[in-house]
Amino acid sequence: MKKTIAVLPGDGIGPEVTDAAVKVLQSIAMRYGHTFHLKHAEIGGAAVDQFDNPLPQQTIDVCEASDAILLGAVGGTKWDANPAHLRPEKGLLNIRKHFGLFANLRPVKAVPALLSSSPLKEEVAKEVDMIIVRELTGGLYFGEPKRRSEKAAVDTLVYTREEIERIVTQAFEIARTRRGKVTSVDKANVLETSKLWREVVEERKAAYPDIEVEHMLVDSAAMKLITDPRAFDVMVTENMFGDILSDEASVITGSLGMLPSASIRSDGFGLYEPVHGSAPDIAGQNKANPAAAILSAAMMLKHSFGLDTEAAAIEKAVMGVLEDGYCTGDLAGNGKRVVSTDQFVTKVVEELERE
Amino acid sequence: MKKTIAVLPGDGIGPEVTDAAVKVLQSIAMRYGHTFHLKHAEIGGAAVDQFDNPLPQQTIDVCEASDAILLGAVGGTKWDANPAHLRPEKGLLNIRKHFGLFANLRPVKAVPALLSSSPLKEEVAKEVDMIIVRELTGGLYFGEPKRRSEKAAVDTLVYTREEIERIVTQAFEIARTRRGKVTSVDKANVLETSKLWREVVEERKAAYPDIEVEHMLVDSAAMKLITDPRAFDVMVTENMFGDILSDEASVITGSLGMLPSASIRSDGFGLYEPVHGSAPDIAGQNKANPAAAILSAAMMLKHSFGLDTEAAAIEKAVMGVLEDGYCTGDLAGNGKRVVSTDQFVTKVVEELERE
Ligand SMILES: CC(C)[C@H](C(=O)O)[C@@H](O)C(=O)O
Ligand SMILES: CC(C)[C@H](C(=O)O)[C@@H](O)C(=O)O
Repeated sequence: MKKTIAVLPGDGIGPEVTDAAVKVLQSIAMRYGHTFHLKHAEIGGAAVDQFDNPLPQQTIDVCEASDAILLGAVGGTKWDANPAHLRPEKGLLNIRKHFGLFANLRPVKAVPALLSSSPLKEEVAKEVDMIIVRELTGGLYFGEPKRRSEKAAVDTLVYTREEIERIVTQAFEIARTRRGKVTSVDKANVLETSKLWREVVEERKAAYPDIEVEHMLVDSAAMKLITDPRAFDVMVTENMFGDILSDEASVITGSLGMLPSASIRSDGFGLYEPVHGSAPDIAGQNKANPAAAILSAAMMLKHSFGLDTEAAAIEKAVMGVLEDGYCTGDLAGNGKRVVSTDQFVTKVVEELERE
Repeated sequence: MKKTIAVLPGDGIGPEVTDAAVKVLQSIAMRYGHTFHLKHAEIGGAAVDQFDNPLPQQTIDVCEASDAILLGAVGGTKWDANPAHLRPEKGLLNIRKHFGLFANLRPVKAVPALLSSSPLKEEVAKEVDMIIVRELTGGLYFGEPKRRSEKAAVDTLVYTREEIERIVTQAFEIARTRRGKVTSVDKANVLETSKLWREVVEERKAAYPDIEVEHMLVDSAAMKLITDPRAFDVMVTENMFGDILSDEASVITGSLGMLPSASIRSDGFGLYEPVHGSAPDIAGQNKANPAAAILSAAMMLKHSFGLDTEAAAIEKAVMGVLEDGYCTGDLAGNGKRVVSTDQFVTKVVEELERE
C-alpha cells in the first residue's frame, strides 16, 4: 500500500513524539511492504512564529495532498498573550473545521502495568475499556452569533439534525465492533439541542437493534466516569460536553501519557494526535512519552488505511515494552525502569521485529 | 431570633430527609432560644400530581413570606415522560429564576471516616476541602433564543458583565473566609462569554489583593478535580460548567450522601437542599441518609440567618455520629454500624444536646 501522510509536529514535545511515531511507521512499512510518503508542515505556535498564522495555506495544501494527518501537539505559554487568531489552538480548531473532521474518537483503556499511577482505586479503574465519540465541528465552538460588546457576550449552541445523525451513526457503527453498548450524553432536561439530540438517537437506534442504547445526563455522566467507569463502552456526545468528559476520562486510568485520538470524517480521512499537550517544560530533553503518538499512528493505520493487522502489531509492541517494565519518566514508580524517548522507541521497534 | 422557613419536601426521599432536618432545627431552636416557623408547601413531581404545576403559585407565596427555603429533592421516573413544563426539575429551575438565586454554593469536604467509600485513592481524596461557586440563573439554562424546529435546535449562552461581576464577587468574598484562593474556570480559548468572564475576574481581583487568583480551562479542571482535588479552595464558574464540575466533585470524596448545597442571592435569602437526588427506589423505607439535608439546614443557619455557632454545632454533631461509627446504608462497610434515618437523626440530636 502507498500512502501519503502529512506530519505536523507542532510545539513543545510535538516534534519528538511525532518523530517517534514516524520511526514506528517506517518499521511497519518495511516489515509489511508499504510505502508511506511523509510530508512535514507547520501548525500551531511554530506556524505563528514562521508564518503569522497557526494554520498557514501551505500546511492546508500539504494536508489536502495527503491521505491522513499525524499531529504532535500545539500550544505553549509563549503564545498565551496573542490575540485569538494568532493562538496555537486556533490552528487545531481551523484544521478540524476546514477538513470537516466531525468525529473525535478518544479510546480510554486501562493498562494493567500502569494502574498504580491512576488516581482511582485499582478496583475501580481496572478493566476500563471505553471510547468517547465527541462531535467536533458543531455546537458552541462554531455557532453564530458568537460575539461580545463592552457589556455582554454571547455564544450559540446550535445543532442540525444532520450533524447529530452523522455522529450518532458513527457511534453506533463503532459499538458494533465493540461490546455493543452506546451511552448518549446530553442535558435534555435543560437544552433544546439536547432534546433534538435525544430524539435523533432514538430514531437511529431502530436501524441498530443489536445495540443497547442508554441516555445519560451530562452531570450524571461526569459522576459515573469516576464511580463506575467500566459501565461505559461507547459514549457519544456533543462538542463541549465531549471536551470536558473526554479529558475527565483521560485521567481515570493513570495513563494520560498513553492515550491516542482520532478526528475523522466519513470517507476515512482523518487527523491523529496524542491526547496529551505540548508540555513545553520538558520539550527537547528526550524525556517525553512517545506512546500516545505511536498509538495515534496505529489508529491512523486502522481507521484511515484499513491496516488492522499492522495497527494491532503496534499496540501489542507498546504494551509489550510496558509489561517488560520500561517506561518514560511520567510513568515512573513501582520498580519500573525509566528510559528516554529514543530508548522507548527503539524498544517498540525491537518488539515489532520480534513479533 | 424568629425566622420563617419554607419547607418544600418534594419527591422520593425528600420528605424523610427534610423531616430529619426539621427535627435538628427544632432542637437547635430549643437549645439556643430561637423560634423557627415552618411552612410546608409542594414542589416538583408532588406539586405536578396535586396542582399540575411543578412550582404552584401557593408555593411561591409561602416562599415569598419566608426568610429561607429548605428543599428535599425533586424528580422520579414517574414523571419522566411528562412534557418539559410538567417535569419536576422545572420546579427547581423556576424557583431559582423567580427568586434570583444566582449563586449556587457546593462545598466538598473529605470526611476521614468515609474515605474508604471514595472511588479515589485515599491519598488523593484525603483532606479535600473546596467549595464550588456556580452561577445559577444565567448562561445556557435561560438564554434566548432557545428553540427548535424539525431540522435544528438552538440554545444561547449569554452573560452580561453584571451577572459575571456579582457571582465573581461572591466567590472572592467566600475565599476571604477560607484559604484565600480562587480558581476561575472557563473556556476562554473558544468562547466569547468566557473571554468576558476572564476579563471580569481580572478586573475584580484588583479589589481583592489578598486573594490568589488562577484561571483554568474547563477541560483541565475536569482532570485536576480527579488528579489533584486538594489544589482547589474556591472554584467559580458559569452555570453549565458548574453543573458538570460540581457533580463530578461531589463523588470524589465518597460522601455524596453527605453533601449540602445553597442557592443564594446577595441579600441573604436562599434555598438549601441536599446534593443527592430523590432516590425513589428507597423512598419511604426509613433508609435514606439525612446528613446532607441536615447539613443544608446548617448552611441556612449560617448564610441566611448569620447563626454561625449553631451551624457549627450541627456540623460537629453530624461528624461526631459518623466518627462514632454510625451511618446509613449508603455508607455501609468497614465495620460501620448501619442505622435507620430516624436513628441517625436521634443520634445527631443527642450529640447536639451533649455539646
Ligand atoms: C485546544 C482546544 C481548543 C481543544 C478543544 O477544546 O477542542 C482541546 O481542548 C481538545 O480537546 O482538543
Ligand atoms: C435538575 C437540573 C435541571 C439541575 C441543573 O442542571 O441545574 C440539577 O442537575 C442541579 O445541578 O441542581
